[in-house]
Parts: sequence; C-alpha cells; structure tokens
Amino acid sequence: MPTPPVTLRRTDPALAAALERSTAQAWTLMAGIGRATGEPAPGITRAAFGEGEEIALQAVLRHAAALGLEAEADPFGNHHLLLPGEDGQAPAVASGSHLDSVPNGGNFDGLAGAVAALAVLAAVRASGLRPRRPLRAVLFRGEESPWFGTAYLGSRLMLGRSPWAEIGALRRRDSGLTLAQHLAALRHAPGPKTPLDPAGFAAFLELHIEQGPLLESRGVPLGIATACRGNIRFPQARCHGAYAHSAAMPRGHRQDAVLAVAELALALDRFWQERIAAGDDNFVVTIGEFATDPVQHAMTKVAGEVAFTLNLGGTDPAVLEAARGVLAGAVARIERERGVRFALGAEVGTAPVALDAGLRALLAGCAAEAAIAAMPLPTVGHDAAMFALSGVPTAMLLVRNAHGSHNPQETMAEADFARGVAVLARAMLRLADGEASGTASGTTSGQD
Amino acid sequence: MPTPPVTLRRTDPALAAALERSTAQAWTLMAGIGRATGEPAPGITRAAFGEGEEIALQAVLRHAAALGLEAEADPFGNHHLLLPGEDGQAPAVASGSHLDSVPNGGNFDGLAGAVAALAVLAAVRASGLRPRRPLRAVLFRGEESPWFGTAYLGSRLMLGRSPWAEIGALRRRDSGLTLAQHLAALRHAPGPKTPLDPAGFAAFLELHIEQGPLLESRGVPLGIATACRGNIRFPQARCHGAYAHSAAMPRGHRQDAVLAVAELALALDRFWQERIAAGDDNFVVTIGEFATDPVQHAMTKVAGEVAFTLNLGGTDPAVLEAARGVLAGAVARIERERGVRFALGAEVGTAPVALDAGLRALLAGCAAEAAIAAMPLPTVGHDAAMFALSGVPTAMLLVRNAHGSHNPQETMAEADFARGVAVLARAMLRLADGEASGTASGTTSGQD
Repeated sequence: MPTPPVTLRRTDPALAAALERSTAQAWTLMAGIGRATGEPAPGITRAAFGEGEEIALQAVLRHAAALGLEAEADPFGNHHLLLPGEDGQAPAVASGSHLDSVPNGGNFDGLAGAVAALAVLAAVRASGLRPRRPLRAVLFRGEESPWFGTAYLGSRLMLGRSPWAEIGALRRRDSGLTLAQHLAALRHAPGPKTPLDPAGFAAFLELHIEQGPLLESRGVPLGIATACRGNIRFPQARCHGAYAHSAAMPRGHRQDAVLAVAELALALDRFWQERIAAGDDNFVVTIGEFATDPVQHAMTKVAGEVAFTLNLGGTDPAVLEAARGVLAGAVARIERERGVRFALGAEVGTAPVALDAGLRALLAGCAAEAAIAAMPLPTVGHDAAMFALSGVPTAMLLVRNAHGSHNPQETMAEADFARGVAVLARAMLRLADGEASGTASGTTSGQD
Repeated sequence: MPTPPVTLRRTDPALAAALERSTAQAWTLMAGIGRATGEPAPGITRAAFGEGEEIALQAVLRHAAALGLEAEADPFGNHHLLLPGEDGQAPAVASGSHLDSVPNGGNFDGLAGAVAALAVLAAVRASGLRPRRPLRAVLFRGEESPWFGTAYLGSRLMLGRSPWAEIGALRRRDSGLTLAQHLAALRHAPGPKTPLDPAGFAAFLELHIEQGPLLESRGVPLGIATACRGNIRFPQARCHGAYAHSAAMPRGHRQDAVLAVAELALALDRFWQERIAAGDDNFVVTIGEFATDPVQHAMTKVAGEVAFTLNLGGTDPAVLEAARGVLAGAVARIERERGVRFALGAEVGTAPVALDAGLRALLAGCAAEAAIAAMPLPTVGHDAAMFALSGVPTAMLLVRNAHGSHNPQETMAEADFARGVAVLARAMLRLADGEASGTASGTTSGQD
C-alpha cells in the first residue's frame, strides 16, 4: 500500500513524493538489518553496545551517507544524522530511537523509529528544502535493559541523566565486560565523556512500535502517547504464614500464605478495574512471579510462605500513590484477617513521565490533516522519557503491532510504518519552520 | 497431675486405681520409645515396616508380656494383645493405633493410641475382671503414607481392603525395597497372607492425638471424631494464560494465570466461609503449591502459566460434591472472564468415612460421666477408617495437641493422655459387658 497522500509543507508539494521514496527505502533497509541480525534464531538479537547493534548502525550510516546526510558520533557512541537549518544557531528538531533489541526480540522495536527519522531527513534533503531549524536523527545505543540491567543507556548518558562513572562500570550480563570496555572496543566514542546540552534540542519526537495490542484491537494504525508509565516495584516480596496439616488445621487457625497473596493480588486488580470503570486507563498491575517454596510445600500442607513480585505501573503519580495506599491497606487487613506477615522487601521504580501537551496536539493535528486515524494511549519507558526529564519538549508516535514486543512474532505493516513517517515528517517540518512548538517546561510529572 | 477420678465399672471400683497405674506406665513406656526412636534428630522417626517401628513394637510387647498379656502377630506383621472374655466365641472389642511415624515427626501420633489400648487391657487384667467379650489392643504397622506412598497399610491389609499382591509390591521410598521384602526381613508374618474377618471385631475405638490445634484453642482436652475427612485432590493442576509485557498489555487483553488461580483459590475459600457461617465445620480447602514457571516468569511479564495443587476435604459427600460444583463453576467463569484455560489434571482422593453414631454417643456419655470436657470435631484419615469401611462399628477419641502433628513440636500433656485413657477404658468395658453397642451397619458414607 502506498504512503497516504499528505501535504507536508505548503511551499513544496514535491516533498510528498520524496518522502514516499525515502520511506520505502527505509523499510527495505530495516528488512535487511533484520535479516543480518536474525541469527541465532528465533527472532532478532542486537546486543546493546555490541555486535548486532553495530551491524544495524553501520547499515544505517551507509544508507545515510549514500543519500548525502552528514553523521557524527557523540561521546557515548550514539550517532546523529544532521540536516542543517537556515539558522545555524537554532536548537535542532530531533527524532530517533534505539538500534539494539532484547535477545530474540522483534525487528521493529527501536529500529523503526531510527529509520523513520532517517527517512524524514532523507526526504527533506532530496527535495532541496532548508527548514529554519536543523533536523537531527538520533540513533541510540543500549535502550533495552536485559543487557546491562538498566534501560535507556545511550540517551541517559547523552543527556547526562546518570554519571558516566556509574553507567560505564555496568557489566553486560552475557559478556561480563563493562559498558566502557564494550564502547572502547567499538571505537565510536571520541573525546571526553561530556553529555550534550539538552538546550541543543528544540523538540524530540520518537516513533516506536506499540508494545501492546491496543491499536490492533481498536483498528487504529497510530497512537499518540500520553505519558511513559512509571512504576512502583517490589522484586523480592514475601508473605510469611505457617505450614500446617491441610485437613487437620481449621480455617480460623490457618496462616495461609497462598490465600493471603491471592487476596492481595485481587485487591490490586479490583483497584485497576475501578480505575477503568472510572474511564482511566493509565494504571496496570502485574504479579509476574508467585511461588510457594519447592523444598517445603506439599499438596497436603497449608502453604507457610510465598515469594512474589509486585509491579504497579501508571502515568499519573497521584494514581500510583492511590495504588500504594490500596496496597498498604490490603496488606494490613490481610495480615490481620489471615494471621500472615508481608515483607514486601526493597522498593524500586521510576516516576511517570508526562509527554508534551503541545507536541501531542501537533501530532494529533498532523494525523487529522492527513486523514490518518490516531488515538491517545499511555506507553512504557522509552528514550523519549530521557528527553522529557531533561526539559526538552517531547512526544511519541506509536505504530500498530498485532503480537506485542520483545518476541519474534512482533509485527508492523509497511502501510502503518508509512503512515507514521508521514505524520512524523509533517510534525518535524512544522517545528523546524517555527509553525509549531512544544509547551517546553512543566512537561514532566516526575523525576528520573 | 493424677488421672481424674472416674468410675469405670460399677461392679469393680478397684479398677480405677489399676488404670491410674497402667496409664502412668504406658506414659513412661511411650517416653522411652520416643528416646529410642529420636535419632537422627530432629523429632521421631519410626519407618513403616522398618527399624523405628520395630523398636516401638518390641518395647510394647516386652511391657505387655511383663503384665501377663498374651500377644499374637497377624499375617501382615501387626500385633494383637489379647484379653479373653467370658464368651469365647464373641467378637472382640478392640482399640489400638499405629507404631510408625512420619520422618522427623512427633512421638504421640499413633503411639499414644497403641499404648492407651495396652493400658486399658493391663488395668482390666490387673484387677482380675473378666468382661463378657474379649478385649484386644491392635498395634498397627505402616499407617503413615510417606514411606510407601499409601496410608493405613497394616490395617488395610489386615482387613482385606486392598490385595496383598498389590500392597506387598509397593516400594519404600528410602530403601527401594518392597513391603513384602521389609516384612520378610522382620520375621513377624507367619502363614499365608489371609486377611482377618471383620466380623471378629464387635467395635473399634481408636485414641489418637489431634493433628490440628482446635482442642487446644477451645481449652477442651478431648475430641470425639464425627468422621474421617475424604478428599478430592488435583496434584498436578495447571492454568494456561499468555505471557505479555507487564506495562504495555491492557487489562482486557491479559490472560493472567496468576490472577486466574488466585481467583479460583478465593472462590473455594469463600465457599468454605459460607459453610462455616452456616454452622458446618466439615469442609477444608488447601492450595499448598502455587508456582509460576521459574524459567519464563519475570516481574515485568504477565504470568502465562501457573502450576498448582488443589486439595478439597470434607466429611460429608454432599458437601464435597457441592465444592466440586463451585470449582467447576469458578473454572468456567474465570476461563471466560480472564481468557485462560485450566487443566486440572488427574483427580485422586478418597470418600469421607462416617463414624458410628452409637459409639460417638457412648464416648460422649463416658466423658460426661467422668466430668471430662469433650467436643465433636471432624478428623483426617486413620486406621479407624479401615474398620469403618469394613462394617465394624468404629469411633475415635482425639487428644489435645498444641503444635499440630507431623513435626517435632507435637505435644501432649500427661493429664490429657490420662483423660483419654479413662474415657476409652470406660467405653471399652461398656461394650465388652454388652451395656452398650455400636449401630453397626450403615455407618460408612463412602467407599475406600
């Protein structure tokens, strides 16, 4: 299916044709990178600061060079494709995403946003336009957390959200080498490890495949992210009860850890249902791990202990705090009623990150002008969150995906990719020409 | 604390003093057996058809011989202490329990009932009485299931509830040898493996330590069992959902196996609460094992699978069937609402066994006459169930225990033991003299 016709810039109707070409080339480029990083099967493996990521980077750089786009590396090995603006001093309108993947993941998570930004710059250059502000496509390294245990490494370092001394010392779980060692081996990190000034970015727009099935289920090709979910996590929670004879112990004397954790899980699920019933789709709760002790448990014993994880997510800090209140209330009540004791253990997590209202409206307007359906929805953490937390006006465009991310079945239709690139290009040009802007400060709802 | 004063038989007031002596001797005997079978620590280990059980048997036989009681072995290695009656043809009034223990269990589970029966026979013999019917104390082997994977082996074989060819071929889990091999090594099994005729028993009364804390919590020393609980068990149940991103997957699309099993567990717990509210204490439910897959689960993933066990117990077949209905209804509803699939797997279990109403009333009457508090309560499976299923009028007397059974902390007060023996002796003599009888047939509510 061809790119939907869309007026990108009133002064240059030829740009649409250039974008159609560059989008098709980006799609082909992405497919080739998928083939090159599809071993060992199943799925796609592009290790952060490692081989598959580097294969993708080199392919993108070759393609950009062939199209006449300048490129440069930052001190952390991220690469930037550049298209100068009329105003050499103006901050850049940037887009981009990450090149790495989870082990045995899909081809589109990250890479689609990287080549989408490339397609926009390529089309603008091919049509000979020179917007007022420079355009920049950023190719990030190391967004996925399985490799070093921490997410958004490339964007986090580039924007100075975490110190190099700390992040450079993280060890990759498969190799045992530090991030600094991996980066040195790649020979792509010139000069001192000084972060870039966020003021150099007028706005950041990230296109990314949706990681859930919501757009697919609603029949809508694009989503406009309202916020990146934050979370409250307890990775090592326990409930202590008492082992007892399954038939001889009366109910009133039981200290049943399984029923206690079951009740806690359903209390949080009920809070979630109430939020949905109230029209609020920003909250999620997951008890991903739930295990009685294999050494001590038995069919004929009341369970004396359960180890579990608790992961509350939300885009609204107030809702997350309300959930924390529900959690504390349920813990106290269940401890009292069931004679158990919860030890939730260390709490980890991040605050939610609100996305820029002005840019969200811009994306919605561009989609509407192009007659492309787009709906608002919350999303998870992305490189975009690092920009938003750094005070850069930031928004995200999500592209429909039938099978979820982080698995080999992840899927994106070429037509949906083209729809996303069309809306992204229109929004970037409006921003670069000064016809639109983000609402800048006050866009973050939390801290890193 | 001395044995509470109690009139045992109007015609022989001296019997009470003899019973006080024999009870104290039985208590001392039991303590000695505990010391002899307390290694390796912790707790007590008397392997079924094995060493610790044999140590206990020899100690009891020596003690019985010193008191002038006859003993004989049956073809399955159980031993019987005998006190002839005036009527040589009359069926015996029997009592007894098992000599084995679980690994690292307590000293009272089984043994207390064996030495209690011995104390009754010893007192009657010492006082020179000759009741109309013979009295018999039965010392069973192999009641505990951990050794051969099946319970009540000695009484089961003796009463022909299961064929020798099948049970004799069971292998003990620690030794790898068959029950037949263990029995042959003990040299206690004369003649062909022919079960005894249940018609030889006029009644069977088993004293046993309570395995839960109900009597302790109510401040009541003795319990009169209403029935042995049967059960419906699913040892290898599973719930199949779908793994998904914990933040990106909306609630309506989740197939969360943890929440599904949690909801199933609480639906059954709710049924239990309703039964209790209705004044019915016969039902229990236990989900002793509950585990997400350690290979695939994660804090950041919706759980795609849960393995669990389900153990429903009850004394009333109608209530167990009602619970089965609640289970089936909850499974269907949760599958529909949460998009999961339950595979409950193979069902195992036994039917509940009702105990004899006449004998329960006799025990209650004897306790009341002796001013010893006793309350009705359901119990778990015991050797007594084999008698009840064989048509022998059967009842059970439970003795208070603060810490539950099958653990080293199991405990019994000497005074409570004496209270139990006093009630047991009174009831056995009433039965032996023909002053009371069981209601015989129609006392079982299920099948083996």
